[in-house]
Amino acid sequence: MKVSVIKVGGNVINDEQALSSFLEQFSNLEGAKVLVHGGGKLATAMAQRLGIEPKMVDGRRITDADTLEVVTMVYGGLVNKRIVAQLQAKGTNAIGLTGADGNIIEADKRTGWEIDFGFVGDVRKANAAPIANLLTQGITPVIAPLTHDGKGQLLNTNADTMAQAVAVALGQEGHEVSLRYCFEKAGVLLDVNDDASLVPVLDPKKFEEFKAEGIVADGMLPKLKNAFDAIEASVTEVWLGKVEGLLANDPIGTKIIG
Amino acid sequence: MKVSVIKVGGNVINDEQALSSFLEQFSNLEGAKVLVHGGGKLATAMAQRLGIEPKMVDGRRITDADTLEVVTMVYGGLVNKRIVAQLQAKGTNAIGLTGADGNIIEADKRTGWEIDFGFVGDVRKANAAPIANLLTQGITPVIAPLTHDGKGQLLNTNADTMAQAVAVALGQEGHEVSLRYCFEKAGVLLDVNDDASLVPVLDPKKFEEFKAEGIVADGMLPKLKNAFDAIEASVTEVWLGKVEGLLANDPIGTKIIG
Repeated sequence: MKVSVIKVGGNVINDEQALSSFLEQFSNLEGAKVLVHGGGKLATAMAQRLGIEPKMVDGRRITDADTLEVVTMVYGGLVNKRIVAQLQAKGTNAIGLTGADGNIIEADKRTGWEIDFGFVGDVRKANAAPIANLLTQGITPVIAPLTHDGKGQLLNTNADTMAQAVAVALGQEGHEVSLRYCFEKAGVLLDVNDDASLVPVLDPKKFEEFKAEGIVADGMLPKLKNAFDAIEASVTEVWLGKVEGLLANDPIGTKIIG
Repeated sequence: MKVSVIKVGGNVINDEQALSSFLEQFSNLEGAKVLVHGGGKLATAMAQRLGIEPKMVDGRRITDADTLEVVTMVYGGLVNKRIVAQLQAKGTNAIGLTGADGNIIEADKRTGWEIDFGFVGDVRKANAAPIANLLTQGITPVIAPLTHDGKGQLLNTNADTMAQAVAVALGQEGHEVSLRYCFEKAGVLLDVNDDASLVPVLDPKKFEEFKAEGIVADGMLPKLKNAFDAIEASVTEVWLGKVEGLLANDPIGTKIIG
């Protein structure tokens, strides 16, 4: 089966109008699809209202028990269920899930670092079968950035990684997966300030050249590493770009190929 | 297929130890099963922490926009996902849902009353097919007391009614449904203060006699009306009683029959 796995981040989640417009485009996207959403600023705002101070250690954000409670409420409840209800209204039969639901994504509490990140999960395994079963029934999974450890503990988890894990797991089961990361840029750009300098297709050879020439650097490096890892594992194609481009049935953005 | 639909209320949800013990028993219950949970006091406590005053009109509680946000977070996020993660740890492959997820329960915003209840839903229809599909795959739906109107609006909804609607819808599709309402009492009692006076089986004729004699009165009347309605519609049996009795594979409590 052909499946599109779409990751959308905070810049869309935070803005009611951008979210509504995104969901309209997502709903119109043909074929089987999965949405993985980030958290956005709502959890930070809710924590502030509850008088929970952001906990930082060595400049890294920590998920303590209070923060986990907030992200479970906000990502798993408020954000996820609003998206599901809006998609239903647009004719997309969505079902909201965390990694714990149907055991779709198992994770381990992060260890082995100099600091204790608290209740943060590193993905151990995404399970393709329950996701594929929903897709076969015409149901669209909407996944919040939370996983579980299988021992009853929910874990705050990076949505980019979850999207990759879901795409790879589906690919490994023989599905033809298009993974699309929506972000602020039009894709990989020769000139970071000029959307017209978009690189439409990027393969590993060109990626190495771009790195050597300094055309890709900073935040784009881990993002592209992630994308090439997905391709290498089992994903047919990975796209990076803006919502408007990537949600078209013929996407516009940077296509990563193996 | 034989299906148990279990409703559990605030008295269990509010108490971490009672909840854990309930989930252990629920997990051990044989066969296909659905859990419908109430909200409990956590939403009220969270609203207080957020400085949201309970809104009452004519002594009735109103779900305004702020309160809906809180119940969506607490029922749909915190309570539901904690239950799901705990059930996964106990070997039950649970999936947490609101009525919006998979469009399992549609509702209408309550109208026609002298007061406006706000974002409160009256169940229009439960859809058996998506629930039965999950059960067939060995997945256990865990349903939070929220529905949607199909137009993008989430609605705060009574968990007893949602449990009844799910049971009736499954019954109408030919499934053999045992609906079990867990509450504080051992069941229908001849003497309300004596659990030993339990009435093990209640049929419509005996119910009429008990009403005439004043043996059932007050809060038990709507609960039993609800139960007999379920039987009349399509449900095989309805039980009322305490968790300990009703979660046994051979339940102990009051069995309502047609």
